[in-house]
Amino acid sequence: MSKKHRGAQSVAFEKPVYLIGRGCVGGVMEGKGPLARHFDILASDALWGEDSFEKAERKFFFEAAKKAIEKGKKSSRDIDFLVGGDLLNQIISASFSARDLDIPYLGLYGACSSMAESLAVGSMIVDGGFASHVLCATSSHFGAAERQFRFPLELGTPKPPTGQNTATAAGASLLSDANDLGDPGCPVIRRATIGNVVDFGVTDANNMGAAMAPAAAETILNHLEDFSLEPDYYDKIVTGDLGTFGSELLIDLAKQVSGTDLSKVHYDCGASLYAGLKKVYCGASGCGCSASVLNGYLLDEMQAGRIRRILFVATGALHSPTSAQQGESIPGIAHGVAIERGDV
Amino acid sequence: MSKKHRGAQSVAFEKPVYLIGRGCVGGVMEGKGPLARHFDILASDALWGEDSFEKAERKFFFEAAKKAIEKGKKSSRDIDFLVGGDLLNQIISASFSARDLDIPYLGLYGACSSMAESLAVGSMIVDGGFASHVLCATSSHFGAAERQFRFPLELGTPKPPTGQNTATAAGASLLSDANDLGDPGCPVIRRATIGNVVDFGVTDANNMGAAMAPAAAETILNHLEDFSLEPDYYDKIVTGDLGTFGSELLIDLAKQVSGTDLSKVHYDCGASLYAGLKKVYCGASGCGCSASVLNGYLLDEMQAGRIRRILFVATGALHSPTSAQQGESIPGIAHGVAIERGDV
Repeated sequence: MSKKHRGAQSVAFEKPVYLIGRGCVGGVMEGKGPLARHFDILASDALWGEDSFEKAERKFFFEAAKKAIEKGKKSSRDIDFLVGGDLLNQIISASFSARDLDIPYLGLYGACSSMAESLAVGSMIVDGGFASHVLCATSSHFGAAERQFRFPLELGTPKPPTGQNTATAAGASLLSDANDLGDPGCPVIRRATIGNVVDFGVTDANNMGAAMAPAAAETILNHLEDFSLEPDYYDKIVTGDLGTFGSELLIDLAKQVSGTDLSKVHYDCGASLYAGLKKVYCGASGCGCSASVLNGYLLDEMQAGRIRRILFVATGALHSPTSAQQGESIPGIAHGVAIERGDV
Repeated sequence: MSKKHRGAQSVAFEKPVYLIGRGCVGGVMEGKGPLARHFDILASDALWGEDSFEKAERKFFFEAAKKAIEKGKKSSRDIDFLVGGDLLNQIISASFSARDLDIPYLGLYGACSSMAESLAVGSMIVDGGFASHVLCATSSHFGAAERQFRFPLELGTPKPPTGQNTATAAGASLLSDANDLGDPGCPVIRRATIGNVVDFGVTDANNMGAAMAPAAAETILNHLEDFSLEPDYYDKIVTGDLGTFGSELLIDLAKQVSGTDLSKVHYDCGASLYAGLKKVYCGASGCGCSASVLNGYLLDEMQAGRIRRILFVATGALHSPTSAQQGESIPGIAHGVAIERGDV
């Protein structure tokens, strides 16, 4: 057994991996929701001066990455590697941003789990001694995602009540092997759990919460078991974008499978980002949802000392339009990353 | 500077990362080419008993992965993580295989550079102490890739002379932190170079070799500089799928940029896989090309002692049909991994 591997599917970092900079950028809907003031930048419209949704998404990715570098008081030359991905085919938002940022680049794809996946991989690279500074980032865009995964917006196709709206947002975290800014409360990544692909046979692409909830339950329960922790060790166990319906499923599943009560500590980024807004069905989804809520609201709360420890579990649906057309079910995955204030 | 980072964009592994098992699966064309006898399995037709090219590609991925596990004398329960990806939208070949293999999974996307990217990430995970056994795998399929990236085969669209044929193939490598099978000549991964995204403004999706050659040149030259090595330190410097035209460009570029002569040691998987066959234009491409040639022919040669050290540089074109339709150029990337016999 390797020295940092724990239990079934987890790793423990030997040294603190410091999250020294973070950026988050949102669109119009994000600016109307309850978390608006936690965004670094809110774009004035969905195109943000570009001539396509896809180019706009790339700008979201790039600007969030730049903010994280800037807040970490670094320049892009100081960053060893960029680890990131997005929802678009061939992850073009991440890849074209990597070109423009000019940082050696590892592209990844975990659908909406990508922020947690990039933090897990980035932390292993830093703690493994391979890099001093790794930038982790991801993005999504409502217009680009609807066109690619469902129907172009111009068709005006209605959504069923279990549907979710892809967030137009991006988030980035700058990881470091040292507490470069000297803040004792600097967030630190302590441990991670790599997800299994879990498939309960859901085939409805308008009910992604149901497809991803079993994966979230498995990762959370295995994380707690791998480290012998109780749920209340964390102030919040955060899921990415299960939405209101998927969140209920998660609570029920955890109770049924192992009698674990997650209801007191659970928080879902997707259910929160658009809370109180109209026509958002079960809430927000997309890589950018959990990425921006983590790097905005949640780490603002940690900085303020109101939360000290979170388990950040971003969930992804690993299907494609092609697999759906060929009658396949929607496999889900969830990666978990434990982030704690450095002084607790 | 972190202790295992080297130069501009490279990492050196502290301990040997053993490549204890490998698998490669090919299709009909691969079975007619000069490397046919190095494949573990050759499928009888492009569908291989499945009802779509996409499902067939998944079978290629899965079977290559199973072979690597089997040859490493392990079962899937012994594998800590699967790191892999493929060319299809949302990397469904890798993700659905991860579900069926039931191994915690990190999906990545580096287009045709994915085999080198997965070996680099997998080696960092093993050498970083996070896992004892990591499986790295990738695949591609001619029919599925043509349909997704160019035109469905049914249209019979002709290719220009600079075109390449996506390989119908998959390759997998099983990495270990110990020389489990006790073979002194077991291949060992010693160092890696993570690619920058390089864009020379090529916009012709039928000339990917030209789009990727600058990235290959940059990664190879920076690798040699980061480790103060001369090209002839390696018996072969292997590129993934530049094809015959892209290979010439690489040799010219390396000469022009730094006066480095790569012609004596350079080998391109894409130019070799279909060598001598008709209607293959500039050769093979696709993730599965370099993955299967590495895990078949090249490591067979290393096992036989005819080559001792290779630098495996898989190259990827990071565009998408959407980015191409929007008038974007094709950015390239190349990741390099140094593999040597354990007894040299």
